[in-house]
Amino acid sequence: MTRFAPLKNDCFLRACLRQATDYTPLWLMRQAGRYLPEYRATRERAGSFMGLATNVDYATEVTLQPLDRYALDAAILFSDILTVPDAMGLGLSFAQGEGPKFARPVRDEAAVGALAVPDLDRLRYVFDAVTSIRKALDGRVPLIGFSGSPWTLACYMVEGAGSDDYRLVKSMLYARPDLMHRILQVNADAVSAYLNAQIDAGAQAVMVFDSWGGVLADGVFQQFSLAYTARVLAQLKRTGVDGKVVPRIVFTKGGGLWLREMGALDCEVLGLDWTVNLGSARTLVGEGARGKALQGNLDPNVLFAPPAAIEAEVAKVLASFGTPHTDTTRPGPTHIFNLGHGISQYTPPEHVTALVEAVHAQSRALRRA
Amino acid sequence: MTRFAPLKNDCFLRACLRQATDYTPLWLMRQAGRYLPEYRATRERAGSFMGLATNVDYATEVTLQPLDRYALDAAILFSDILTVPDAMGLGLSFAQGEGPKFARPVRDEAAVGALAVPDLDRLRYVFDAVTSIRKALDGRVPLIGFSGSPWTLACYMVEGAGSDDYRLVKSMLYARPDLMHRILQVNADAVSAYLNAQIDAGAQAVMVFDSWGGVLADGVFQQFSLAYTARVLAQLKRTGVDGKVVPRIVFTKGGGLWLREMGALDCEVLGLDWTVNLGSARTLVGEGARGKALQGNLDPNVLFAPPAAIEAEVAKVLASFGTPHTDTTRPGPTHIFNLGHGISQYTPPEHVTALVEAVHAQSRALRRA
Repeated sequence: MTRFAPLKNDCFLRACLRQATDYTPLWLMRQAGRYLPEYRATRERAGSFMGLATNVDYATEVTLQPLDRYALDAAILFSDILTVPDAMGLGLSFAQGEGPKFARPVRDEAAVGALAVPDLDRLRYVFDAVTSIRKALDGRVPLIGFSGSPWTLACYMVEGAGSDDYRLVKSMLYARPDLMHRILQVNADAVSAYLNAQIDAGAQAVMVFDSWGGVLADGVFQQFSLAYTARVLAQLKRTGVDGKVVPRIVFTKGGGLWLREMGALDCEVLGLDWTVNLGSARTLVGEGARGKALQGNLDPNVLFAPPAAIEAEVAKVLASFGTPHTDTTRPGPTHIFNLGHGISQYTPPEHVTALVEAVHAQSRALRRA
Repeated sequence: MTRFAPLKNDCFLRACLRQATDYTPLWLMRQAGRYLPEYRATRERAGSFMGLATNVDYATEVTLQPLDRYALDAAILFSDILTVPDAMGLGLSFAQGEGPKFARPVRDEAAVGALAVPDLDRLRYVFDAVTSIRKALDGRVPLIGFSGSPWTLACYMVEGAGSDDYRLVKSMLYARPDLMHRILQVNADAVSAYLNAQIDAGAQAVMVFDSWGGVLADGVFQQFSLAYTARVLAQLKRTGVDGKVVPRIVFTKGGGLWLREMGALDCEVLGLDWTVNLGSARTLVGEGARGKALQGNLDPNVLFAPPAAIEAEVAKVLASFGTPHTDTTRPGPTHIFNLGHGISQYTPPEHVTALVEAVHAQSRALRRA
């Protein structure tokens, strides 16, 4: 088994486990990305997005880039959300200037019947990247692994690409719920195996991105998204290669209305988008012995405003959560600062500096107040 | 003053005013639209979308088309959501196969300073259409007028077109809130004048479409969308040309998390999308002396499923609201059936027949149970 360097900054992991911290830890969804000139340079050398994502050295390099610039409290594996369906044989590609596309979308009974949990060897490049990144981090901050949720993967698998109305996947859901359940079962088992292999490779926390759960109707979300996220969680390893607990984060974009039901999930952290009031969320699911840590939820568009405005909006987010607990003898309400969605490619990198400094300084001050 | 024929079907208006009805009234957002072959034929003759929307005869014709096919309980003015900013001089156009586009988007202090409530004469074609449609309806069902909300109009005015990240409009909001407030003030006053002129022309109910309110952060929504919707409502006429109360409907897509605050709006009806649980919404804002009628909220994608599945989903929506009150002596909880968003252009027209029949038959049966 690989031995990794001891962790120097455990603020993020402590907050995930609802343990008191000296300040509010911070990382950013899509923090390794196009807004950074150094990312664009590596992407250029890699030749293509998949060339970047499938090469262990490039993936390691870009994962660490934002950490060299900013005092972030966690790293997240650089990879694509669609690696699992690609390994199922759906044929992922990225056309220039467009989003992902599958050559063989899953649209009929035969295609659904042919789906199976992929051979994990086809995803070896991801697990190798996890180990490589963890080594390169050398204990600076913990490494988060991730996957799309079963429902979110199903959206892409049926639509064959991004969508603005989810017509094809919802048509199947309403017309042939049996087929949709079969896809989601396969996806849930594949996602569990995928995340467990990331944990075995060195991931110290894992996150399930239910990016499209929020497009579902009330009632349908619970049956076709939440139930399969729960199925993933039930199958996940509870400890990593170093014997430490691996916190599990679930983020449903647009899922604020179902927060109470998400509070019953067997996970440690819930991610929230900017439509959710953090204070209300804390009351609903953040307190008590079985409460969750909360992660979020600044609108990424705030980062287009000047630093003074960014600082003011950071203050609002921190105030909305309220003071995290400071009792080191027991778990209590904690907050992990993040955006409510991935950072925009148009973000001025120096505005992220202002954000990181504001979160750290203000959250330390809050605890002293 | 124009005299119109007496109303034969007042089920929709009664439900808006929370009066008991024999069945649950039904209309569909975007019910006059591309899914109907007769609409496409008229659109073809008109030559362009704006040719259709600005011609009184065409607008009348397409508004009535869905009523000739289906037993809908209300008509809605056929028009575009961007007529008001177009009248402000922003230069609206529709490129083939694309969405709306403004030639002169509002992006700097000078452009914001130049904005003003437009001369209503430039919108005369809309008011003429309202009168023409009301006459053509001949009392069959009531006619709903509408406008985009101040915030939703501002999104298009600043972005210059549709957007998937609202980067430009949110950049202005966070960086220059003073400019955004000025746009919203002008929009609110323009929208009120626009809706009042529709009421004077014969509209029997009016609806404010806050299609993009749901993209705002908690706290920001209240300040930049809800407050200006309230400003519109405060300026609206309370009675129409025939002396009857004109119910006001407010629909914020993605606004389910702010339902309690929307419950305090001075309007009669709240529209809901499919993410909202109708039963919870009824408990929150539908009961009591100051409750609202609720409108919604079937996912339009249900209409791609076969009739049996449509009937089952209709049953779920009706059951979620629960039995509307039947006491004819006082107001109480009422439900107006609708989709949670506009009907898709790909909808099979015969599936709408199944929907309309299911809503009427099932909701009558519910009241007898």
